[in-house]
Amino acid sequence: MKHLVSIEDLSKDEIIKILNKSEEFEDVALGKRKSRILESKILANLFFEPSTRTRISFETAMKKLGGEVINVSAQEASSMAKGETLADTVRVISNYCDAIVIRHPLEGAARFAAENSNVPVINAGDGAGQHPTQTLLDLYTIKKEIGRIDGTKIALVGDLKYSRTIHSLIKALTLFNTKIYLVSPPILDLPVEFIDELDGDIEKVELESVIGEVDVVYVTRIQKERFLDEEEYKKVAGSYRITIETVKRMKDDAIILHPLPRVYEIAIEVDYTKQARYFKQTFYGVPVRMSILTEVML
Amino acid sequence: MKHLVSIEDLSKDEIIKILNKSEEFEDVALGKRKSRILESKILANLFFEPSTRTRISFETAMKKLGGEVINVSAQEASSMAKGETLADTVRVISNYCDAIVIRHPLEGAARFAAENSNVPVINAGDGAGQHPTQTLLDLYTIKKEIGRIDGTKIALVGDLKYSRTIHSLIKALTLFNTKIYLVSPPILDLPVEFIDELDGDIEKVELESVIGEVDVVYVTRIQKERFLDEEEYKKVAGSYRITIETVKRMKDDAIILHPLPRVYEIAIEVDYTKQARYFKQTFYGVPVRMSILTEVML
Amino acid sequence: MKHLVSIEDLSKDEIIKILNKSEEFEDVALGKRKSRILESKILANLFFEPSTRTRISFETAMKKLGGEVINVSAQEASSMAKGETLADTVRVISNYCDAIVIRHPLEGAARFAAENSNVPVINAGDGAGQHPTQTLLDLYTIKKEIGRIDGTKIALVGDLKYSRTIHSLIKALTLFNTKIYLVSPPILDLPVEFIDELDGDIEKVELESVIGEVDVVYVTRIQKERFLDEEEYKKVAGSYRITIETVKRMKDDAIILHPLPRVYEIAIEVDYTKQARYFKQTFYGVPVRMSILTEVML
Repeated sequence: MKHLVSIEDLSKDEIIKILNKSEEFEDVALGKRKSRILESKILANLFFEPSTRTRISFETAMKKLGGEVINVSAQEASSMAKGETLADTVRVISNYCDAIVIRHPLEGAARFAAENSNVPVINAGDGAGQHPTQTLLDLYTIKKEIGRIDGTKIALVGDLKYSRTIHSLIKALTLFNTKIYLVSPPILDLPVEFIDELDGDIEKVELESVIGEVDVVYVTRIQKERFLDEEEYKKVAGSYRITIETVKRMKDDAIILHPLPRVYEIAIEVDYTKQARYFKQTFYGVPVRMSILTEVML
Repeated sequence: MKHLVSIEDLSKDEIIKILNKSEEFEDVALGKRKSRILESKILANLFFEPSTRTRISFETAMKKLGGEVINVSAQEASSMAKGETLADTVRVISNYCDAIVIRHPLEGAARFAAENSNVPVINAGDGAGQHPTQTLLDLYTIKKEIGRIDGTKIALVGDLKYSRTIHSLIKALTLFNTKIYLVSPPILDLPVEFIDELDGDIEKVELESVIGEVDVVYVTRIQKERFLDEEEYKKVAGSYRITIETVKRMKDDAIILHPLPRVYEIAIEVDYTKQARYFKQTFYGVPVRMSILTEVML
Repeated sequence: MKHLVSIEDLSKDEIIKILNKSEEFEDVALGKRKSRILESKILANLFFEPSTRTRISFETAMKKLGGEVINVSAQEASSMAKGETLADTVRVISNYCDAIVIRHPLEGAARFAAENSNVPVINAGDGAGQHPTQTLLDLYTIKKEIGRIDGTKIALVGDLKYSRTIHSLIKALTLFNTKIYLVSPPILDLPVEFIDELDGDIEKVELESVIGEVDVVYVTRIQKERFLDEEEYKKVAGSYRITIETVKRMKDDAIILHPLPRVYEIAIEVDYTKQARYFKQTFYGVPVRMSILTEVML
């Protein structure tokens, strides 16, 4: 049985295979072609914490392929969790579906669920752990919007310390021949241990020094809670904000990505520039998840 | 792209077209005929406040036509609203569906959503604003149960001041050649400015004086919160209540409507009279919404 | 119209018919065969209190047969209940679907709902009342895992006083030629009035004295709330717990069932013995509910 728990479970070839297959599903996602290949299959969305965007993205992917979805809300899931072990919950739910998408506040929960499930388990985020489908859709967006992943220069901007999305993405990017620039306030730097593990071309820089040469600016939210002091937060958040001025210094065919929701870190005016691709990025979640769902269920 | 934000967006001809099309869908709603014309289409129910009846009515309409529905509950929607702007939420959701039904506590929210959406937006009630699909189903019920809209005499009873349903309905009724009687306690009268705007045959009366001649008695709830004093509320609510005695004075082929839920304003015994059509009215929500959904999505 | 409110509504022949039909649906439940026989039909899950397992089981059964499901959550249902009577809620919802599954905290609510519904109503548990689909899946599990119901010896273990599941199951078992052993702490004994009503071969025993001869050990949870004193609870719960030692004394082809969730009453190690069939039992809920859904809707 195939689970998708961590991006590290996939080789470069397997990633490329999923991305290529995503491309075939794009016209189904766009409604240009109908497909019923997942008819009679049931996906259970087992979300121990809410993540509406991710839930909906999987639901749309499943339904546009003729499949059905059963949602277990955070409230229901927590109520189950109070009355029985996660192992029992997963055993029961896996008797009612053909695959499980799990979201859980604790790192390792998705792996544990996979070990107790009769059906494939897809990790949709487990605490500080992994969120591999986000990484795959990020890679797919770069591939589609830049035309390639190999050879691209990517600036990762914002919270590099706590962002699960960034950690997974860096690991995947180092499988490709990419140049990675880290752009973060010192207190949100990528942990040193993390860099040591990686075998990639990675460099900590100021955004200013690379903005004119990068192909991708990948922005993440800087959370107020990380700062002791509101003043300090405002100063830092302000200096890592993407504005029209930032965009003007970017290459004409460079792109800005963001896992969303976006708050302050990208100015609204940027939405109307052609570099802004973060809404398109959310759309790409559909064909990528179609690719993953068919991979584990068929 | 076609949105349905306000009943005023529709001409009389467009309203008639939607009502005629609703008639064609009635046997699908009744299960006498199968249809899959919305297969592979996805409707997102984006409800920033709960409205279970409306949500279910859209869901049934969509599913009986072979379409799929993604629900975003009030809880999920509010949680999204805390983390990002309504514009961003709508942009993201519209990447995952073929149409959005929005319910929101603030007037104007549906129009704003439509402006930010890649897909058609249907207003299912925005604060004191509009609820056009309710109006269309009200008109359809009159058409079906009386046989025509033109030429009917309609008494609007209860809260005419705050009821969004009433405001939309009056506007639509004035497009047809109807006689409208307003029946309300003084503190819940239709606002004067509102009447001034309308070009219709409208008259404020006592129910007693018209009960024997009207074709439709349309009742709305008188809410306790509108009164400073419980005693005053009870007195008023009692005197605008529809009872068996009221029904006896109605024409044999006249009908009683109510947008539901009904609390005290129609006595239970009235349910068993042939004038009572408020449950049938809820059923008519299905073919009417089928008509609207196919109108905006196909 | 056919409702399923109480197991007592069914004759032995009707029960056997449902169980036989369940067998035909088993390969659909397992995904070995596709079926669309409930296409265009809509089931409303109207849950006034949460019961995720039961809800999902019905949802899967419906969807694997090509049908559609509309969920009304406990939160939405309670909110409806505040604004109108249960009769009105049921009348409205029954205009939007082809059958209703109702779960309600009050005994008698399902019968009342059936009386007010335009479509078949299936009781998924109403307070201390009935939960007939659980009983049918319990019977089906015995039939499938033992090979027959007639002639089996069954020990009912744990809370026999308050368990709705047990009460329904005993009534059904007495229709078959079974030997029923009651195993419970004195304060959780089956009520005497209850036994008087039954015409079956029923005996109160110690588990020890029958463990080597029974075909089925049906375990239910002993709830802490039933005891005044935590110490007393622990002592009792401990002495009615199924462990590896209990399993060793069972017949080789005997089985252990439990309606789940399971907390302390069956040790985790027991899960890996071949006698443990409580997870398989949850799976059997799907074909049994398929059988019931087609019975009431087709």
